Amino acid sequence: MNEFEIIDRYFAVDSGKRKDVLKGIGDDCALLKVPRGQRLAVSMDTLISGVHFLPETNAADVAHKAVAVNLSDLSAAGAEPAWITLSMTLPEYNEDWLESFHIGLKRIVNFFGVQVVGGDTCRGPLSITIQAHGFVPETVFHTRSGAQPGQLICVTGPIGDAALGLKVAQNELQVPPNVASQLLKKYFTPYPKIAAGIALRGRASAVIDISDGLLADVFHISESSNVGALLRWDKIPLSAAAQTIDDKILLKKAVLSGGDDYELCFTVNEDDLEATRHALETVGNECIPIGRLTGKSGVKILDNKQEMTFDELGYTHF
Amino acid sequence: MNEFEIIDRYFAVDSGKRKDVLKGIGDDCALLKVPRGQRLAVSMDTLISGVHFLPETNAADVAHKAVAVNLSDLSAAGAEPAWITLSMTLPEYNEDWLESFHIGLKRIVNFFGVQVVGGDTCRGPLSITIQAHGFVPETVFHTRSGAQPGQLICVTGPIGDAALGLKVAQNELQVPPNVASQLLKKYFTPYPKIAAGIALRGRASAVIDISDGLLADVFHISESSNVGALLRWDKIPLSAAAQTIDDKILLKKAVLSGGDDYELCFTVNEDDLEATRHALETVGNECIPIGRLTGKSGVKILDNKQEMTFDELGYTHF
Repeated sequence: MNEFEIIDRYFAVDSGKRKDVLKGIGDDCALLKVPRGQRLAVSMDTLISGVHFLPETNAADVAHKAVAVNLSDLSAAGAEPAWITLSMTLPEYNEDWLESFHIGLKRIVNFFGVQVVGGDTCRGPLSITIQAHGFVPETVFHTRSGAQPGQLICVTGPIGDAALGLKVAQNELQVPPNVASQLLKKYFTPYPKIAAGIALRGRASAVIDISDGLLADVFHISESSNVGALLRWDKIPLSAAAQTIDDKILLKKAVLSGGDDYELCFTVNEDDLEATRHALETVGNECIPIGRLTGKSGVKILDNKQEMTFDELGYTHF
Repeated sequence: MNEFEIIDRYFAVDSGKRKDVLKGIGDDCALLKVPRGQRLAVSMDTLISGVHFLPETNAADVAHKAVAVNLSDLSAAGAEPAWITLSMTLPEYNEDWLESFHIGLKRIVNFFGVQVVGGDTCRGPLSITIQAHGFVPETVFHTRSGAQPGQLICVTGPIGDAALGLKVAQNELQVPPNVASQLLKKYFTPYPKIAAGIALRGRASAVIDISDGLLADVFHISESSNVGALLRWDKIPLSAAAQTIDDKILLKKAVLSGGDDYELCFTVNEDDLEATRHALETVGNECIPIGRLTGKSGVKILDNKQEMTFDELGYTHF
């Protein structure tokens, strides 16, 4: 099989013929139509085997995660996903692996109604680069930089499960099977908060998806908006599964620095909290205040009125 | 330096503040405006060290080529380039290498007036994935699939120099310094035929950029358009440098299967040849007929009325 056949057979996933795709996979370029009155939001992320996912991860989950992390960036921008392009380097032609990848890709692409419009493949160490494209109305402008002192910092759901799931997958955390299953699911197949991102249009002053870790991502907002942040440990929502973890140091690290949760973290005026909560609940998400923005720079977190200290603020690659 | 600082310092290249970039590098998504009446053309290509470029290639040339091959896909679609996103995996943080990459990136991005609007970087074997974005008027629709029997097959300039340049770079071809310099330049720093692609709007029935090799790319048109092609070896334009090559077998392989030339190959009605030639010459390109489309499938090439045989039809990765 040559590269063109691989792209055609395994990547050309069409979620019911989007009318805005004038030309998809199979030519030098895809040709696409952005609806009038909408802006184009784009984001590109690379996942490398052994860095962003465990080498033994099944291929369907690799496909899921590669798409999910990119759609998650769109959710932070309040965008409605439309198209993805996919470039993959593969160590070898492995039909079973590619078939499984195809199944995972098709499932998530269909779930979100997006279409794969371009692809590239070549031989090399396993990695996947995806660019996601979505639409944002002209009037919406979510960024990380609009946060103001006094506003509340909120999240859309429980934090830390993905990082705990990674520990379970690596046999570094022993938990009962039902807990393991929940944590592993959050780590391997996260669902980006697209509906929440859209619900936050016109409400949130700053939005980010929690990919690097809660503290690191709050720090990104704080730095971009030139404000400080004071978080309360006891306010951060934990799932029922996370609450069963006895090792509290490991739990705190997972929640604060673990990353990979793909919940949204956003800032909102206190006066708008109830309306925002209602908008989020309407689409099945929570709206949980975990702290407040301050005029002083830096991110602090209080546990029982004591400031917590941490040696890492999330994961960076260099 | 962390990944965000690398992106900020080395990739955030802005060719004079494009007004259609509402939000560039530094947030979860870039936010972009496609002009009214224009379609979006996108293409993504990955370049891997040791596969798509020689590991010892200087970083400025790596940047140039990574951008060039992607803009070349846009040229085939008749698109006007606007933005690129760039994901790089790096084996280590090497300031000199990144500084050189930055210089090469800045030069080509400024030359074509495009802006880097998004980036990602992480640690791993050296590879670069770029997605190029351009605009195509609603009325233009270049593809590979519009070619009709009887039409002429043309190219925009000499073929084979890049493949010969690769042989020189690998010390597999000995030529005088002035010849070497011309061939190496075509291999390391090709300039995509953007103006030619735009000039072909409304004239060419099918267009492709010559990246895989002349025969392979004519075959792509032939297959997509469901037509055959008959090429004439003596009509294929060779540069003055290529004409000095004594080894005619090596020369033929370079010209027919070498790839990496990034000239355009297109098909056009014979009646439209002169107008097309004029349009291309106006923007400094040639219009050289090298064969004709036929009703029979497959690609054939005649050398002195004899059909040539070849064991490879261009390079594929699997």
